[in-house]
Amino acid sequence: MRVLAKDVAARSGELVEVSGWAHRIRAMGKLSFVVLRDRSGMVQLVFQDAVDFGQESVIRAEGLARANERAPGGVEIEVREVECLARADSPLPIPVNGSLDQVSLETVLDNRMLSLRNPKLLSIFRLQSEVLRFFAEYLRGEGFVEIKTSKIIGTGTEGGTGLFELQYFDKKAFLAQSPQFYKQAMVSSGLERVFEIGAAYRAEKHDTPRHLNEYVSLDVETAFIEDERELIELEKRILKSVFAGVAAEDAETLRLWGATVPSPESVDAAPTVSYEEALSIVAKSGRKIYEINPEAERLLCEWSSVEHGSDIVFVNDFPRKARPFYAYPKGKGTLSFDCLFRGLEITTGGRRIHEYPMLLESCATFGLDPAALSDYLSIFRYGCPPHGGFAIGLERLTQKILGLSNVKEASLFPRDRRRVSP
Amino acid sequence: MRVLAKDVAARSGELVEVSGWAHRIRAMGKLSFVVLRDRSGMVQLVFQDAVDFGQESVIRAEGLARANERAPGGVEIEVREVECLARADSPLPIPVNGSLDQVSLETVLDNRMLSLRNPKLLSIFRLQSEVLRFFAEYLRGEGFVEIKTSKIIGTGTEGGTGLFELQYFDKKAFLAQSPQFYKQAMVSSGLERVFEIGAAYRAEKHDTPRHLNEYVSLDVETAFIEDERELIELEKRILKSVFAGVAAEDAETLRLWGATVPSPESVDAAPTVSYEEALSIVAKSGRKIYEINPEAERLLCEWSSVEHGSDIVFVNDFPRKARPFYAYPKGKGTLSFDCLFRGLEITTGGRRIHEYPMLLESCATFGLDPAALSDYLSIFRYGCPPHGGFAIGLERLTQKILGLSNVKEASLFPRDRRRVSP
Repeated sequence: MRVLAKDVAARSGELVEVSGWAHRIRAMGKLSFVVLRDRSGMVQLVFQDAVDFGQESVIRAEGLARANERAPGGVEIEVREVECLARADSPLPIPVNGSLDQVSLETVLDNRMLSLRNPKLLSIFRLQSEVLRFFAEYLRGEGFVEIKTSKIIGTGTEGGTGLFELQYFDKKAFLAQSPQFYKQAMVSSGLERVFEIGAAYRAEKHDTPRHLNEYVSLDVETAFIEDERELIELEKRILKSVFAGVAAEDAETLRLWGATVPSPESVDAAPTVSYEEALSIVAKSGRKIYEINPEAERLLCEWSSVEHGSDIVFVNDFPRKARPFYAYPKGKGTLSFDCLFRGLEITTGGRRIHEYPMLLESCATFGLDPAALSDYLSIFRYGCPPHGGFAIGLERLTQKILGLSNVKEASLFPRDRRRVSP
Repeated sequence: MRVLAKDVAARSGELVEVSGWAHRIRAMGKLSFVVLRDRSGMVQLVFQDAVDFGQESVIRAEGLARANERAPGGVEIEVREVECLARADSPLPIPVNGSLDQVSLETVLDNRMLSLRNPKLLSIFRLQSEVLRFFAEYLRGEGFVEIKTSKIIGTGTEGGTGLFELQYFDKKAFLAQSPQFYKQAMVSSGLERVFEIGAAYRAEKHDTPRHLNEYVSLDVETAFIEDERELIELEKRILKSVFAGVAAEDAETLRLWGATVPSPESVDAAPTVSYEEALSIVAKSGRKIYEINPEAERLLCEWSSVEHGSDIVFVNDFPRKARPFYAYPKGKGTLSFDCLFRGLEITTGGRRIHEYPMLLESCATFGLDPAALSDYLSIFRYGCPPHGGFAIGLERLTQKILGLSNVKEASLFPRDRRRVSP
C-alpha cells in the first residue's frame, strides 16, 4: 500500500512503500541518497549501495521509515526493496531538480513536456487549478449557471480581423475570439446569470510578454443590471474569493514564488477612475501617453498602490470608439470598464446594448451589416433584459498573482506566432 | 428591490417588484393575466386592463402579492406599475411557452438563440452545469488537479485523419481530437492525477444522433495504476457522485423530462465483460454483429439491465487493432475499456504504455514515425509512471441522463457537418 511522501514522517518506525521520481541522487561512500518526488512532496531514501537508475527514473521502494533530523522533512526511508518502473535517459535536456533561472523561456517552452517537472514551474499550475475552482465556486454560489459554447463559428462578426480561419468540411469557419454573443444569448434565454471557462483565440501577430494567441477566458454575464459599477462590484467579490482560496489552499506555491495575494480590504479599496481621469493621472508622470496602453496600465497601478493601498484599479467610461458596437453608450462614453491588476489589464467588460432599435443604430454607426448579424440580433429582437458582463484572462490573473514576467509562463502549452508545439 | 418569482409566495400581503419575460399573456374581460418568467421560475401578474407589450417582452412590475389558490404557485401580483424594458417582436419564430414536440430538431437548432428560452429545453443545460460541477468536485476531492491544454496542435499525431485543419499564421495546424498527450505529460510532470474539461474536435463526416464534430470532453488521467479495473472503479465513483449531485440539485429538470438517475447500488452493480464475452452476449440476440457497434451497445445495456439491474456495462480487453498505439497490450488484447450507459458508449479509456522501449515497438507495429512523435515520446524517455485514464463525453452523458433522442439536443450550439451557426 503506497504512502505519499508527505505522510512518511507520521509513519516513523514502520515499513512503508513509496513511489515517485528520483529527483536527486547522491553517493556518499558506499551509501546512496535518493530524494524521491511524488505529487505530495519529497522524501529521502537511503540505499546501502549504488543505485542502478538515473535521475527522473520512476521507482517504487519499500523500507523502514526512520526519523533523522538531518534528512529533509526530518525523516528518511532505509530502503530494503526497490523496483524501477521506468528508466530515464540521461542527460536530461533541461534541469528538473535545479533552478531554471539561467535557461531561456524559449528553451523551457521547447522542452515543455519535461520542464513542467521542475517543481517550481509545476507549482504555477497547481495554483491555476485553484483559481479555476474558486472562480466557478464563487459564481455558482451567486446562482450563476456554467455554460459551454462552440468555439467554431461560421462568421467573423466583429469585423473579422484577428480570427483564425479553419477548413470546416467544404466551408470556411473561424475560431471564436470570445463567447460574447453566446453568453448574451444565454442570459437572454432566461438563465440570467452565466459563466463560461473556455478557450479564446486571437490571431494577432503581437509577440509580447502579455499576449497569447490561445488563452483561457473566464467569462461572466449577468442580467438586470443598471450599469458597469455593479459588474465591478461583482468582479471584486470574485477576486476576493479567488485570492482567499488560493492563499488557503496553495500557500506553498505563493511561498515558492515569493508572492502574496491582495487582502480583501485592498480589493475593496480599489478605486474606479474614468478614462479621462486615468489619462490625467498618467499625464502627471510627465510622459506623453494618450491612451491606456501598457505603460499607462503600469502607471495607474502604481498610482492606485500609493494613493489607495490597492494593487487593483478599475477604469470606466471608455470612449465609444475604443469599445465594440455592443457597448452601452452614455454620452460620448460607454458603460464599460477595464480591470488593471499589478500593472496589467486582466479584464474588459461592461453593460451591453439590450434594446433592438439601439443595437441597429449602433451597427450603422460602426458600419456593420445587420444581415450578417441576424442570429445575434434575434436575441434582442425578441426581448432581452438589460445585462452586462466581463472576462478575466486566466493566464494573466495567474501571472500577476505569482509575479511572473511573461504570460506564457502561466500557460501549460502556450501558443504564439511561431509556436504550435509541443 | 427585485424579488425572484419563486420567493413571491412568501411575501403575500407585501408590495413586491419582479422582473422577467412575459411568458404567457391572456385577456379575461377587462383583466389581463401575464405569467412572468425569471431564472427562478414563474409567477402570475394581474393587470386591470390590456397590456401594451407582447409575449417574450422583458418587463419590470411592482404590485401587491396576494395569495390566490387558483393562480399557479398559489400566489399572484396585482400590478400597480409596470415598465417594459425590451419589447419583443411578434410572431415568435418558434414556440417558447409551448411544446416543441411538433418542431423538427433542425428548426429548433436553426433558431437556437430563441429556442433555448423554452423552459424544457433550457433545463437540459441547468442540469449539464451540475454535471460539470460534480465531475470536477469529485475529482478535486481525490486530489486531482484541473489542467487546461492547447486545442491548437502542430501535427496530427494519431494518423491525421479526422482532424480539422487550421491556418495558423504561415503554417498549417490542427484542432486537437483530445488532450490525450498533454494529460499524459501532466501525469508524468508529477501532478500524477489530472482532469481537464475542454473542447474536442472530430472532423468526421458522420451525421448521426450520436455524433458531434465539437464536444466537451471530461478527461481524467491518473498515475500508479495496475490495470483498467482501477479506472473503471474510479469512473463508477465519479458517476455516482454526478448522479447523486444532479438528483439533489436539479430534481426539477429530471421531473420535466420524466428521467431518473441510476442509484449508487446499480452503478456498483455494473458488470465488466471482456470484448469477447460482449460479442457472445450480443450473439445471443441472433443478430449478426461482429464488433461493438451501436446496435451491440444497445443490446449489451439491455442485457446488463436484465441480468444485473444496472443501466451501465463496462467492456474491457479490446483487441489491439481496435485501440490506439499507446494502449497497454496484454496478450492480443489491451488493458482498455469502454463504458456503455443506457445503450450508448459514453467513455473510452485504459492503461497507457509508459515504458519507452515498448512504446517505440508499438509505434513500429502501428506504422508510426517516432520522429514525428518526439515531443510525446520525450515524456516516456525521461521516466513516466504506469498510468491510465479515460474521457467521458459531456453531451452524451447529459443526453442519457435525460433520455434525449439526439446528442445535439445536449449541446448548446452543436456543430455537425452542415452546421456552424448560430
